Amino acid sequence: MKIAVLGHGTVGSGVCEILWNKKSEVSSAAGKPVELGYVLDIKDLGSVPYSEEFTKDFSAILSDPEVGTVAECIGGLEPAYSYIKSALENGKNAVTSNKELVAEKGAELLSIARAHNVNFLFEASVGGGIPLIRPLYTSLNAAGITEISGILNGTTNYILTKMFRFGEDYSDALSDAQKLGYAESDPSADVLGWDSCRKIAILSSLVWGRTLKPSEIPTEGIDKITAEDVKTAEQCGFSIKLLARAKLLSGGKIFAKVSPALVKNGSPLSTVSDVFNAVLIKAETTGEVLFYGKGAGKMPTASSVIADIIEAEKLDENIKSLFWEDGAQSVFAGTDSAAKKYFIRTDSDVSAIIPKAEKLSENAFLTPAMTESEISVLEEKINEHGKLLSKIPVYE
Amino acid sequence: MKIAVLGHGTVGSGVCEILWNKKSEVSSAAGKPVELGYVLDIKDLGSVPYSEEFTKDFSAILSDPEVGTVAECIGGLEPAYSYIKSALENGKNAVTSNKELVAEKGAELLSIARAHNVNFLFEASVGGGIPLIRPLYTSLNAAGITEISGILNGTTNYILTKMFRFGEDYSDALSDAQKLGYAESDPSADVLGWDSCRKIAILSSLVWGRTLKPSEIPTEGIDKITAEDVKTAEQCGFSIKLLARAKLLSGGKIFAKVSPALVKNGSPLSTVSDVFNAVLIKAETTGEVLFYGKGAGKMPTASSVIADIIEAEKLDENIKSLFWEDGAQSVFAGTDSAAKKYFIRTDSDVSAIIPKAEKLSENAFLTPAMTESEISVLEEKINEHGKLLSKIPVYE
Repeated sequence: MKIAVLGHGTVGSGVCEILWNKKSEVSSAAGKPVELGYVLDIKDLGSVPYSEEFTKDFSAILSDPEVGTVAECIGGLEPAYSYIKSALENGKNAVTSNKELVAEKGAELLSIARAHNVNFLFEASVGGGIPLIRPLYTSLNAAGITEISGILNGTTNYILTKMFRFGEDYSDALSDAQKLGYAESDPSADVLGWDSCRKIAILSSLVWGRTLKPSEIPTEGIDKITAEDVKTAEQCGFSIKLLARAKLLSGGKIFAKVSPALVKNGSPLSTVSDVFNAVLIKAETTGEVLFYGKGAGKMPTASSVIADIIEAEKLDENIKSLFWEDGAQSVFAGTDSAAKKYFIRTDSDVSAIIPKAEKLSENAFLTPAMTESEISVLEEKINEHGKLLSKIPVYE
Repeated sequence: MKIAVLGHGTVGSGVCEILWNKKSEVSSAAGKPVELGYVLDIKDLGSVPYSEEFTKDFSAILSDPEVGTVAECIGGLEPAYSYIKSALENGKNAVTSNKELVAEKGAELLSIARAHNVNFLFEASVGGGIPLIRPLYTSLNAAGITEISGILNGTTNYILTKMFRFGEDYSDALSDAQKLGYAESDPSADVLGWDSCRKIAILSSLVWGRTLKPSEIPTEGIDKITAEDVKTAEQCGFSIKLLARAKLLSGGKIFAKVSPALVKNGSPLSTVSDVFNAVLIKAETTGEVLFYGKGAGKMPTASSVIADIIEAEKLDENIKSLFWEDGAQSVFAGTDSAAKKYFIRTDSDVSAIIPKAEKLSENAFLTPAMTESEISVLEEKINEHGKLLSKIPVYE
């Protein structure tokens, strides 16, 4: 079978290289001959060994019956969405590394794939090279998952690691990440938490079977975290991580949130540093399970796309356990449906205002567990007497 | 289809309970009706809701065409081996949690399964409830794995954690583990490293496609680790873990070893405490990937057996990427094919004897990287002047 790779950027070129250089390994894993058939991009490829496979014409891919799987590595909603939809409707498998597309259009594309008895796979959309999506719909499919907590963005984890290790300011650590190519010149999607938000939306939708929309998830980035926050947290035995969390509540609704959080030293998420990602799953039958690895980068991500291509070519029918639906009603339980302890820093001693808080230092406290509304009320109260400098939930 | 559960001990009874209580979830995941059909044990079951399925007659299971999968939870080589072999030869899938059987007879049973176009699955044999075996033969199948390092035994990890946290002696921590049911009254298989040895043999055979026999792997337990070792290591920023390691060398042979090792604080394996297990995989395309979770226990292990039952019932054909062979020659590269730094404790200052060693304290040192033979020579040399109290390799 032929594989068509859409988009020849970082991930797409990695996928092409593996298909070209490891054709026999990939074919042997898929149990049939598999080769790079088309590379579609709006720009010319330059000098690559597979330049003869280049095309700008998607309809040529669509009408070639030998194309078994389309690998979309363009990113963004369009034209990625239209290409994948047409591919599935024409009985071809589609695989993608595009988290925005999967978070927004996953339910629809999975349903089209099912109707045409092909597969829509997206291992590379969350956690880069970490095998994560597949264990969730296979091994852990009947495990009764109740909670997902992840460090899902390598860029912000790199920035927070630099702040933690070297006492750097946020802006210095960000410039550093940009110089090394870990952060883009417009870093908003990473540092404001949108990327993590899309990824936890995908995981939640997959695990609990109903679409959780990224737009519903309260999302806070790391741009307000100061060197002082990191230092105070460290002195109290915590590090600060950008966590994406989702939890199944007793009524069947989901609480989800993306925000910086204090993680206690010694907890499995505390050693996840630099550009690494990790996802901690809590399940009724298996207890805690953690997956850890490189969450981004050309070859880790490309190798996850390749694993999906192999899976798609190996299977003759739609995977029943990989599915979710858009619900008539939102599955999001509301921002006040969970309570957390907060780490707060103030410009003065507020012990009198929060009698039940644990005093960490002169002007740093751990509050009792509070909802978002309760901490907002407390914030106003503190600001009547002095100033609240930081409030960061504690991960437990 | 009917499932036959062989053995009604800890894991087997867990498997029966899930099949009985979650019949519809399991059936829906498998894509067909699946139910508990037989429970075989030499002892009566006592009062369980599925007592009507009890049998002592394996031939009844074998001759029932409705039995699609046999789940072996007896443990040990016989009669587990004969039962599984007959089941596969009669066109039934077999799944097992039995690491001894898989380590010793894996190649043969996989080959019989292939010949009869059924599957032999063993997710629960390594890492209990951690989805590990399946990602290795699916997602990471073409990732170019070069190294496996694991904390594969929960009992020893619990004992070492107690010694680390509370400064306990080995024998006190062991009694503790026995009282809590984490260690058996004869704890040899755990504390002497045999259990870890069988598990790394399975992982190595699976990943590199040729049988690595447990008997070939140099295996050292934790029974000689003292409270003093743990304390000194801790003061130098290390914890001591029982590590099982396997590495692909350039000539295609494998170096493998099970022994206590010093793990640097901050490394992903350092936070793996109590009865938790973890496996760190290094691969060419994905870099480091880690899997973490409960390595033992009734429900975690039973849920991995259930995941295999679902997989076996879902598939119509043998999984091509799950296979290894007995080679004509051993794949083990020899004990001197790798060099490690060693942490050594002595009863006197041996700086003069090991000029290149890093002095950690009065009588504790880190040697340069050495092979097994080199460290043995050094040990003799030290013992001419004083006494070598401990030598523990450093994990890097």
